[in-house]
Amino acid sequence: MPSPGSYIAAHKERFVQELLQLLRLPSISADPAFSQDVLETAGAVAQALIHAGCDNVEVCDTEGYPIVYGEKILDPELPTVLVYGHYDVQPPDPVDLWDSPPFEPVIRETELHPEGAIYARGASDDKGQFYMHVKALEYMIRENKLPCNVKFMVEGEEEVGSVSLEEFLKANRDRLSNDIILISDTGMIARDIPSITTGLRGLSYVEVEVTGPNRDLHSGLYGGAVANPINVLAKMIASLHDENNRITIPGFYDKVVELSREERELMAEAPFDLEAYKKALDIDAVHGEAGYVTNERNAIRPTLDVNGIWGGYTGEGAKTVIPSKAYAKISMRLVPNQDWREIMDVFTAHFEKIAPPGVRVSVKPHHGGQAYVTPIDHIGYQAASKAYEETFGKTPVPQRGGGSIPIVTLFEQELESKIILMGFGLDSDAIHSPNEHFGIWNYLKGIETIPYFYRYFTEMSRG
Amino acid sequence: MPSPGSYIAAHKERFVQELLQLLRLPSISADPAFSQDVLETAGAVAQALIHAGCDNVEVCDTEGYPIVYGEKILDPELPTVLVYGHYDVQPPDPVDLWDSPPFEPVIRETELHPEGAIYARGASDDKGQFYMHVKALEYMIRENKLPCNVKFMVEGEEEVGSVSLEEFLKANRDRLSNDIILISDTGMIARDIPSITTGLRGLSYVEVEVTGPNRDLHSGLYGGAVANPINVLAKMIASLHDENNRITIPGFYDKVVELSREERELMAEAPFDLEAYKKALDIDAVHGEAGYVTNERNAIRPTLDVNGIWGGYTGEGAKTVIPSKAYAKISMRLVPNQDWREIMDVFTAHFEKIAPPGVRVSVKPHHGGQAYVTPIDHIGYQAASKAYEETFGKTPVPQRGGGSIPIVTLFEQELESKIILMGFGLDSDAIHSPNEHFGIWNYLKGIETIPYFYRYFTEMSRG
Repeated sequence: MPSPGSYIAAHKERFVQELLQLLRLPSISADPAFSQDVLETAGAVAQALIHAGCDNVEVCDTEGYPIVYGEKILDPELPTVLVYGHYDVQPPDPVDLWDSPPFEPVIRETELHPEGAIYARGASDDKGQFYMHVKALEYMIRENKLPCNVKFMVEGEEEVGSVSLEEFLKANRDRLSNDIILISDTGMIARDIPSITTGLRGLSYVEVEVTGPNRDLHSGLYGGAVANPINVLAKMIASLHDENNRITIPGFYDKVVELSREERELMAEAPFDLEAYKKALDIDAVHGEAGYVTNERNAIRPTLDVNGIWGGYTGEGAKTVIPSKAYAKISMRLVPNQDWREIMDVFTAHFEKIAPPGVRVSVKPHHGGQAYVTPIDHIGYQAASKAYEETFGKTPVPQRGGGSIPIVTLFEQELESKIILMGFGLDSDAIHSPNEHFGIWNYLKGIETIPYFYRYFTEMSRG
Repeated sequence: MPSPGSYIAAHKERFVQELLQLLRLPSISADPAFSQDVLETAGAVAQALIHAGCDNVEVCDTEGYPIVYGEKILDPELPTVLVYGHYDVQPPDPVDLWDSPPFEPVIRETELHPEGAIYARGASDDKGQFYMHVKALEYMIRENKLPCNVKFMVEGEEEVGSVSLEEFLKANRDRLSNDIILISDTGMIARDIPSITTGLRGLSYVEVEVTGPNRDLHSGLYGGAVANPINVLAKMIASLHDENNRITIPGFYDKVVELSREERELMAEAPFDLEAYKKALDIDAVHGEAGYVTNERNAIRPTLDVNGIWGGYTGEGAKTVIPSKAYAKISMRLVPNQDWREIMDVFTAHFEKIAPPGVRVSVKPHHGGQAYVTPIDHIGYQAASKAYEETFGKTPVPQRGGGSIPIVTLFEQELESKIILMGFGLDSDAIHSPNEHFGIWNYLKGIETIPYFYRYFTEMSRG
């Protein structure tokens, strides 16, 4: 087919401006203070789908934030692609570390992005990446290049665990029926090294509370005589890793699939520059589980990280207090065959068990999701691979991703189809961090590549 | 002399109302947002001294908050008592745990305080306790019972380390010259067990910062591959105590004076009910250094407590982040012969030394003070002891206090006189905690007892 390039060239200014507009909406699903903005964003997504040419666009109510649905059905006999994305974003804090306001997108040229990158919360995760699909659809419909049916499902609770999604899937099985699910919510290795994520880590996210005395105490009158919840929490957290940085929770590793030497050697072929990695993070050393290299530690191995901790006096100056309570948010990244609910259970049992006398401990489950693997011989993967070959001129590398998209396994289970993760972001996009950005080159390359996927997937489905 | 009781009986309503007025001023020295209130409080204290009959009252400027001075000089040949107090208070947070607003004092009757207790931040520490001295002076002047000279020095930075006091003392040695320094900023064992604090613990207060990657990272993409500053900080804090809850910092115990078996046996005579202690704090067990009992752990042994910790995402919901930084406020309580500056140095050296690869650590000294001991054969102690005998009908118990009043050692060094700590508060006053309060009985008993101290101290000074 004639390249989508000419259409993109003619409309790229508008494509960028439309994305900037979407990024100005602070759709922070984790903070109730922004609920009106999240709802407004759902409406904006619906408008975008209608403008792109979708039919039956609907902002579907849920127990939480709405899910935006839209479709273009050419012929029930043709294969159907279901596109998933999310319009909610992570909280922007610490806001003071942003070089420009997180919800006032600006375009800056960088060494890595000479064509400019869009700086804003959600630029890459996931507004910029799902909007590529909206614009790719616009092209295919306007230019009469859509070879199959397409459905869109864009949710607003991905950053808080997609709490309403499962019920929505169960209630809309027919409407959502498809032959393949297409998601761009991951990254690729580099601009010149396209890659397709074939595996994702699972997640178990908990919040713990340690309670000591029933009130804050003066550390002079009580210091040394009662258990200090912060000191205790620190000791408990410290005990969760051994000297080899292996997690000490009994049963944690029981179901972990150990990769074969062959597989690890294949992975090792992906280019990786440890010095550049350390330099980019300004650290003098990496840190992780003994016996594995960095690219294994963040992809094929389970982990436990404290994502937040607080307790006592954290204001200006000094307060000599022994607090009544201390808290931490802890998440565990999981690998195939670990069950996130089982891991949450073994964590809870262990954490309660190691609480010393003098304190009480409670563990609150937040959310979780299973790990996932895509077989590279699936036609969905093959079609995606050929699409990248068209636009990048080389075969993409199958890659294990360290992140979690809990809904991926939910889709497989509820909709009984495979998921293709065509990510166009880069690790350097700083998603979940200050100064998140998305390269304009990546954005347009995604819009250009996606239509080829539709074409090859439709062809391969026929034969 | 005729008892001050009748004067107190005639004026106690006013004495209470005047204190409530003072407690309505939120003089939080740790928080710059309240600077105007702190200054206003200094003015109110000056007015109170003038009303009580002080001459030459002055609100003395310093680099920080002012020090209020006032005096009543009868005759240079007579002994001079210098009264010290502080008009600043601790921050009230967590405010939501207060049963009534911290700066809207209310009087509530309790089992322990059938005559009522005043609930407000600063009620006991130290507005209520220094104001006893103002009212005792009013009585002595009005009733012509002042036997000696008196000077008042009331500062506004005690809760933030008395940062301006040393310079003020150096600059005002003559004006502040005295024969004994009298302070009520401590407690007594119980209403029916008067006690005089003969020892105080010192303090070294630091703030630590652990920096990992140069920005917050997505825990999926980087989790397991880089050092997480929160996990590292937890491990570092945990390592500061060994399995016997002894502090592991090299050199920390070098100068600690071990008490004799005899002294410890004397201390053990002070009544203590461990079950009641645990019940009052709602804890199932006490916790502390092996080989010492609770009353020793919080008085004659040095300690290390984390007073505050924060890092990562602490808002609502879940954020899967590896933060760039984690922080903690850490204070060490010290005992006689430990030097707070040396302890700060050994802490800093040790904490920097144990930082693992992959993070950078910085230690910021906050403030500190030396431990102190009052000899019980000093005439100041003897005079105070006789004063308690007059009003309580029994000899007070000499007691080691766990808290720190850093300025006590500063006074001894700069003004070359001894300090008598006549405290009328109770451990249950919840100073530095929500629902701080001060018994009206304690308040009036203090006002009644103080004039006897002046009488006996003047008599004993004569020889």
